[in-house]
Amino acid sequence: MTRDMPDASRRLEHMDELVSLCARRGFIFASSEIYGGINGFWDYGPLGVELKNNLKSLWWQRVVREREDVEGLDSSIISHPRTWEASGHVEHFSDPMVDCRTCKRRFRADQTDEACPEAPSQRRVSECDLTEPRNFNLMLQTRLGASEDAASLAYLRAETCQPIFTDFKRVRESARQKLPFGIAQIGKAFRNEINPRNFTFRSREFEQAELEFFCHGSEREKWFQHWLEERLAFHRGLGFDADHLRTRPHDSDELAHYARQAVDVEFLFPFGWQEIEGIHDRGDWDLSRHSEYAGKDLGVTDLETKERFVPMVIETSVGIDRTCLALLCHAYRVETLAEGDERTVLRLHPAVAPIKAAVLPLSKKLADPARAIQSELRRHFNVFYDEAGNIGRRYRRQDEAGTPFCVTYDFDSQEDGKVTVRERDSMAQDRVAVDGLAAYLRERLERTD
Amino acid sequence: MTRDMPDASRRLEHMDELVSLCARRGFIFASSEIYGGINGFWDYGPLGVELKNNLKSLWWQRVVREREDVEGLDSSIISHPRTWEASGHVEHFSDPMVDCRTCKRRFRADQTDEACPEAPSQRRVSECDLTEPRNFNLMLQTRLGASEDAASLAYLRAETCQPIFTDFKRVRESARQKLPFGIAQIGKAFRNEINPRNFTFRSREFEQAELEFFCHGSEREKWFQHWLEERLAFHRGLGFDADHLRTRPHDSDELAHYARQAVDVEFLFPFGWQEIEGIHDRGDWDLSRHSEYAGKDLGVTDLETKERFVPMVIETSVGIDRTCLALLCHAYRVETLAEGDERTVLRLHPAVAPIKAAVLPLSKKLADPARAIQSELRRHFNVFYDEAGNIGRRYRRQDEAGTPFCVTYDFDSQEDGKVTVRERDSMAQDRVAVDGLAAYLRERLERTD
Repeated sequence: MTRDMPDASRRLEHMDELVSLCARRGFIFASSEIYGGINGFWDYGPLGVELKNNLKSLWWQRVVREREDVEGLDSSIISHPRTWEASGHVEHFSDPMVDCRTCKRRFRADQTDEACPEAPSQRRVSECDLTEPRNFNLMLQTRLGASEDAASLAYLRAETCQPIFTDFKRVRESARQKLPFGIAQIGKAFRNEINPRNFTFRSREFEQAELEFFCHGSEREKWFQHWLEERLAFHRGLGFDADHLRTRPHDSDELAHYARQAVDVEFLFPFGWQEIEGIHDRGDWDLSRHSEYAGKDLGVTDLETKERFVPMVIETSVGIDRTCLALLCHAYRVETLAEGDERTVLRLHPAVAPIKAAVLPLSKKLADPARAIQSELRRHFNVFYDEAGNIGRRYRRQDEAGTPFCVTYDFDSQEDGKVTVRERDSMAQDRVAVDGLAAYLRERLERTD
Repeated sequence: MTRDMPDASRRLEHMDELVSLCARRGFIFASSEIYGGINGFWDYGPLGVELKNNLKSLWWQRVVREREDVEGLDSSIISHPRTWEASGHVEHFSDPMVDCRTCKRRFRADQTDEACPEAPSQRRVSECDLTEPRNFNLMLQTRLGASEDAASLAYLRAETCQPIFTDFKRVRESARQKLPFGIAQIGKAFRNEINPRNFTFRSREFEQAELEFFCHGSEREKWFQHWLEERLAFHRGLGFDADHLRTRPHDSDELAHYARQAVDVEFLFPFGWQEIEGIHDRGDWDLSRHSEYAGKDLGVTDLETKERFVPMVIETSVGIDRTCLALLCHAYRVETLAEGDERTVLRLHPAVAPIKAAVLPLSKKLADPARAIQSELRRHFNVFYDEAGNIGRRYRRQDEAGTPFCVTYDFDSQEDGKVTVRERDSMAQDRVAVDGLAAYLRERLERTD
């Protein structure tokens, strides 16, 4: 797709602009808005749910369906609480917190440099009368069954990968897989973030797409590199410019004690470089721990060498909400047009754009033939129809929604059987025969894949 | 697709057989199996997740994408707790429970006819020393933020529809919709069932696909009938036989106080007729309550008549897990073949079948050309490759997985450029040119749609 840019184009500088666009156009808005919202929870509206579903489908297609060495899974959000003891979350998944003895507020011990919200001046929290730091577990808890005792305690999963480990043996045997192979799933996870922030970037309920790839220890490095390259190719395929994407290897003091290496894939958000995906060598930590806690041997036997061993795990973990946010931030432009007009446009990659094409009759009198075109196109992709307002305003609405193509049916169309196809980014217009319209759009939509 | 049945065919009589098949083949199995499971929670394995995703995609396509009067939504599982006060769940969504003063166990007050699990004989619970019934709320609770006070209480949603009501105004305005129109979403919901049972039929974590359709009071009946017919057509389109599907209108004493009418769509499970979907006329109850609790007017104005009113709501609510279970129960057959052999087969509708076709080289020597066919077919549908074991055993494995077509590449294929296509239900075989294979399969896969 052409990326010719109008002369003056401004990228997103402040999140406020995007947050406002997202709410106004129905991409993403605060959960329970009419009750004043709820901190750290977001809803995806009509455009947002299509964007998110497109991203998830692409991931599933690439990571699961196109490969024979990866199996899919969809596990429950609540699992046996021993899962989270074995994983180390019950003991270690916590932030150190301090309480203010005066106002009774609680703060993250590593964020006491911020201004105290209770103080009239800009006094920092660190000057308050604070308790010693105590650990605060970030898992959300609930209770199951009718009794109120400790036996009924359960956790909402803090990451989607742990059920992959507990289901490892069942999936391997039922799918008749041999090492090396992976198990992947997409789903919700929950963390009781003390300070949700940066729109959907750090929220309390979020969606992950995780792959755990199981291999022999001699192949750790090879598979780590393989998956790092695969995942970078995926992100590049979403259209991110090279100067907005980077990898950051973890320093040795950042690594979990069981991890040999880890690389973050970072995106340049308006609020700085931040992780959207992590590729981790988790070693045999998870399977060994679950073997121990469940009293079940999760090791495998190499049929040729007869060696018995616990597989090593290479993990790729991408935040679906974070990647959606990166896509939106990256796509956002305010452009000054030749006529001095301004337009806001989301230059979303066609593969993730919620609507692929909009059909616009120049006049309501042309609704019938335009509707016929829409019906035909809708067999192939998600197509929108709009006959309200002048054509310029309708183009602007589609620009804001990130729709790659507008198809205009005018009075000449009745004569020559052609329509005008306008491309979102270049605003270039093509005259295309209705007969070949679906093929024309399909070809241009797929050109960047 | 032909439905010729071998002479002796036995439908599923006992759930045990299906539960066993589902675990063995990786459709569905207990969550946290290695920890002994967790009551009321299930995981979908490699075949199950494809089955479920296919069903969800079909619903989304039919209810959202093919219609201009329905918008999609994906709201958070946790929302502002006032949501559940307004909906009436905090006050009324409960089962009456009794405690045994001797053993301290708790039972549903309407299930005291069952045998007491603590008594050595088969003494019924009702003969125990029981307290008076008390209401036990079925919503799962959690706490958010760092403080432990009541302000942090939150609920996991007990149904996906309530966020649709709280987001009604935002979605309507951002999507520029006018009545009549609907909002639909698919997602997880949670209920603290005291007695989860019948495999995935009554579980504590489950997935719903719900549509709330908003209309003027004068059109309630029309839209109720429209959606009832739409949803019945959907279920019939999944291949359910007429004698396994029925509608059951609620008696007036079953209706919620705000509901004018309700019809259940029921499926004949091995454990009897049970609801898989409900179509409900909810009136203006939900929007009125949220207007009141949020202090926000959720009414609309008819632009022609200037009438201001709170929309009436027609709801369709289908259980995704229940429908998957119905599909599996309905598809299950044990058949006696001509040679006296037995086969287990899942006669799943091709649209929901996890794998659409399996490519099987007759010999491992033919792997390369068979792989080439698989690569080509995989561009169109989910295709599996299997070269292990004799061809009869490989057919049986695909029968059990519900795969509609097996494509066998044999030594003749090298000469004549043709493969053998075997249809799952009739086991009839066709010789098909490799060139036209994708088109041939596509046509036969879509024939029943």
